[in-house]
Amino acid sequence: MSTQKDTISLLISCPDKPGIVSAVSGFIFKHNGNILESDQYSTNQHDGSFFMRICFAEDTFQLGEGELGEAFQPIATQFQMQWTANYSRRRKRVGILVSKYDHCLVDLLWRWKIGELAMDIPFIISNHPDLEGLANMYDVPYYHFPVKRATRQQDEQRMLDFIGAQADFLILARYMQILEPFFVEAFPQRIINIHHSFLPAFVGASPYDQAFKRGVKLIGATAHYVTNSLDEGPIIAQDVIHCDHRDSVDDLIRKGRDVERRVLAEAVRLYTTDRVLVYENKTVVF
Amino acid sequence: MSTQKDTISLLISCPDKPGIVSAVSGFIFKHNGNILESDQYSTNQHDGSFFMRICFAEDTFQLGEGELGEAFQPIATQFQMQWTANYSRRRKRVGILVSKYDHCLVDLLWRWKIGELAMDIPFIISNHPDLEGLANMYDVPYYHFPVKRATRQQDEQRMLDFIGAQADFLILARYMQILEPFFVEAFPQRIINIHHSFLPAFVGASPYDQAFKRGVKLIGATAHYVTNSLDEGPIIAQDVIHCDHRDSVDDLIRKGRDVERRVLAEAVRLYTTDRVLVYENKTVVF
Amino acid sequence: MSTQKDTISLLISCPDKPGIVSAVSGFIFKHNGNILESDQYSTNQHDGSFFMRICFAEDTFQLGEGELGEAFQPIATQFQMQWTANYSRRRKRVGILVSKYDHCLVDLLWRWKIGELAMDIPFIISNHPDLEGLANMYDVPYYHFPVKRATRQQDEQRMLDFIGAQADFLILARYMQILEPFFVEAFPQRIINIHHSFLPAFVGASPYDQAFKRGVKLIGATAHYVTNSLDEGPIIAQDVIHCDHRDSVDDLIRKGRDVERRVLAEAVRLYTTDRVLVYENKTVVF
Amino acid sequence: MSTQKDTISLLISCPDKPGIVSAVSGFIFKHNGNILESDQYSTNQHDGSFFMRICFAEDTFQLGEGELGEAFQPIATQFQMQWTANYSRRRKRVGILVSKYDHCLVDLLWRWKIGELAMDIPFIISNHPDLEGLANMYDVPYYHFPVKRATRQQDEQRMLDFIGAQADFLILARYMQILEPFFVEAFPQRIINIHHSFLPAFVGASPYDQAFKRGVKLIGATAHYVTNSLDEGPIIAQDVIHCDHRDSVDDLIRKGRDVERRVLAEAVRLYTTDRVLVYENKTVVF
Repeated sequence: MSTQKDTISLLISCPDKPGIVSAVSGFIFKHNGNILESDQYSTNQHDGSFFMRICFAEDTFQLGEGELGEAFQPIATQFQMQWTANYSRRRKRVGILVSKYDHCLVDLLWRWKIGELAMDIPFIISNHPDLEGLANMYDVPYYHFPVKRATRQQDEQRMLDFIGAQADFLILARYMQILEPFFVEAFPQRIINIHHSFLPAFVGASPYDQAFKRGVKLIGATAHYVTNSLDEGPIIAQDVIHCDHRDSVDDLIRKGRDVERRVLAEAVRLYTTDRVLVYENKTVVF
Repeated sequence: MSTQKDTISLLISCPDKPGIVSAVSGFIFKHNGNILESDQYSTNQHDGSFFMRICFAEDTFQLGEGELGEAFQPIATQFQMQWTANYSRRRKRVGILVSKYDHCLVDLLWRWKIGELAMDIPFIISNHPDLEGLANMYDVPYYHFPVKRATRQQDEQRMLDFIGAQADFLILARYMQILEPFFVEAFPQRIINIHHSFLPAFVGASPYDQAFKRGVKLIGATAHYVTNSLDEGPIIAQDVIHCDHRDSVDDLIRKGRDVERRVLAEAVRLYTTDRVLVYENKTVVF
Repeated sequence: MSTQKDTISLLISCPDKPGIVSAVSGFIFKHNGNILESDQYSTNQHDGSFFMRICFAEDTFQLGEGELGEAFQPIATQFQMQWTANYSRRRKRVGILVSKYDHCLVDLLWRWKIGELAMDIPFIISNHPDLEGLANMYDVPYYHFPVKRATRQQDEQRMLDFIGAQADFLILARYMQILEPFFVEAFPQRIINIHHSFLPAFVGASPYDQAFKRGVKLIGATAHYVTNSLDEGPIIAQDVIHCDHRDSVDDLIRKGRDVERRVLAEAVRLYTTDRVLVYENKTVVF
Repeated sequence: MSTQKDTISLLISCPDKPGIVSAVSGFIFKHNGNILESDQYSTNQHDGSFFMRICFAEDTFQLGEGELGEAFQPIATQFQMQWTANYSRRRKRVGILVSKYDHCLVDLLWRWKIGELAMDIPFIISNHPDLEGLANMYDVPYYHFPVKRATRQQDEQRMLDFIGAQADFLILARYMQILEPFFVEAFPQRIINIHHSFLPAFVGASPYDQAFKRGVKLIGATAHYVTNSLDEGPIIAQDVIHCDHRDSVDDLIRKGRDVERRVLAEAVRLYTTDRVLVYENKTVVF
């Protein structure tokens, strides 16, 4: 992995019209960038939207970080683009929030340590002290921020103040508190949650109990952006596992752990490699 | 397949208490039956329920069809069993209801013809004439029973009168009408429907449109018993297939066809081989 | 489906160097084509290879079929491209070869009839007469070409002479004869076979017997191009299904039918929508 | 999990004949055992074999550990049974062998720690010192046993002497040395290996390189008992994951880690819960 070249990924959203691919790829070529991956999606409707990810090697590209924005601006203006340029060597800073369940955190930390997830982890925050030992194993700072029903607003404000500009985005790795709207709005489309069901089935609390009661033959997990509608944000990744009448709620929880951690890790991998765009309440995953 | 021996399958539900397996297997052994498969499930709770399927060869069994019931009754009474004896050589008579979509019907008829589904099909009923040609290909009688909103009660009553005692159970192979309560009650736990979503997600009409709008990354299908709560009957089988932002509603429909027919066929196979028991609103599938 | 616009898909293979995407997309834009899909892959090695599929709407494109080749040639020459232009309205002509098993043929014909596979089927050829009735159901001409061990060369030559220029590619839908080298060479990378195992496991005859004997916990199917190395051609699609000790060889065959037909249909869909490129002994599937 | 009752599981293999289920379940009932699970399998052939797992609660069972064997012996003799009685409260002692890759070890240790795998781990042995820190995190003794080509026999003998009677079975959690026959024979059907391919595809070294070269569309992992035929022992569990042309060997390795650890953990769970029987070169997994 360490031998991979540094790359620049442009993520672009704009109204669909002819010439975008040509303009963007022409721009990169003109400045000597070698395109490594290019993917696009158009909603193909009247008044449609266009989405693009184009990834090119940084080493031969002739524009520096400061110059790229200025040079690309005419194209961006012409096509009314929203766009970001993402440098692979600028690892995303990812804060992790947890409660007591450790399976997602264990998995994220291990994948991060072996280089599978290219990111920095400035902190782990929890409303419980339980997982501090795990954080210590991986030398990641752990902060205990208790959250009480009566003081939730202030508790979360303190947390937000602490986070400040330390993190580019947040992962709720089975963080069992519902975040206040002001908190969510501080990280628009930059908080990923793992919900332990195949959404939109079993929204809300205790999805495995709900699944057991309904007698489903599959259980799942959903990684999605957090919005202020409970469990209704844009879905990034989902997967399922088979179950049957023999599975108790405990068995569903056990099986679910495997799906949850896999789905969350996949969503984080997609996000940190700049592959996720949002439109309406959905994601485009390149 | 044709070389398989005739078998008898006992399906048993009763309160859980020690000695059931011993009593049932002892009974079969005493009358010279050779047990081929035996499966059981207990809810393992206080005041729990016990479910059993035990399948044995008919050829060496010394009790005739008329005698089995009487001989087994003392055990059934002792353990307060609800039970049925199912003879594999008595193929279930399965009526199929369809509308215009042919994918489930095509699949059922083909599997039936090659011997994968051991059943008889006395009739296909549809509220449209479209699939008559398909029924003719397989020499199955096809009856067109139009159903109109204003006369639904009478229309369904006519259908029910026609069916009479011709069928042991019914398959709704994408039959696009909601059945009236009196119709459903005429076939308790004997109507299987295929719903084109992973229930309980996307109950009701147009699940693929709902799935597209929600931006899910998996779509599914659910085969379940029909009850008078829409799409809430006991689930027999479910499966899913991956999808992504590129999939239009038409693509979801295309992918969904494959899952629907597979899940429905599996549910029918399980039912016709006497592997499904119902409790609460769930199934035990042996 | 019927509302989809006519498209042109360029399939391109060439040595990897900067500027290809820009040149191709610039060319399409210049002639007023609206790019609908674009995908590329580079082997990213020293002396690497580059593969591209770019699909654009035909209606606004200003070059006619005769003109496209000439106009594109300078770019093709500059980058040493091997390339084809595929018009969606020119449906591929697909000949099907079968023996006695009907499951793949049933599935292909049904998918074709409902418009899921955009192709024409000029003929079905079989070394047995058994499936003629099925072909008749779908009004596809069926030809019985017996193949005998002693006269295989002549038998296959007769078949090849009959096929002539009637077909763009061939599907072996469980055709149980090994084709002679001269026959395979007449359709280079234009014969798709379905092998009833997860290749490279269980090459050759009776893979389900081999799988049963080995006690695997999954069985699979592989759609691949036919080459003159048995079961070793480039793989297009593969899938598996779980099995266990209870599955007899007959059960594996039953489960396998579902996987085989699904995998073959997927490979045919990919091929007929111009999504498959070959390099070394592998495929790039866009 | 901790609230689960202690159980006794009988694992039985014998020639198939009528009366086995009746005799065993009658025996358990007579001594006041409450059967919780019962599963059986018969090869259903002339001169067939019969396999059974029957699990009952220990608390009400009237025979002590010393008495069970004697009391059951007449039945065992009558049916020529090979059998074991497994007490859930006697956790299996599982030694783990590793080399440098940590993903399987990380996963096993975590599952063990949270109680998902009911076993004791008396030691971790490695031919490298690298994973000692990980072992320390979980307070499991770690022993470095270098193995050199020239002294392999002696090196392995030293290892075997060390192990002695400390372990009931061994897990090769990506242990990258081939064990000598004498070592394997010391643990017949009691060494589980994880092979990083879908066996029998890609036997031997570097299966991901082989898979990449062959261009497969799925990669897999296989947990199997170690025998003295390389990668040919009885298979316990297998699974796969999709891949495509974009996946480099490094990507296959990354994806493979997820499958490997999941499949190995599942095999260990099955083994430690007394669900695996071996016959011919296959497993029966109850």
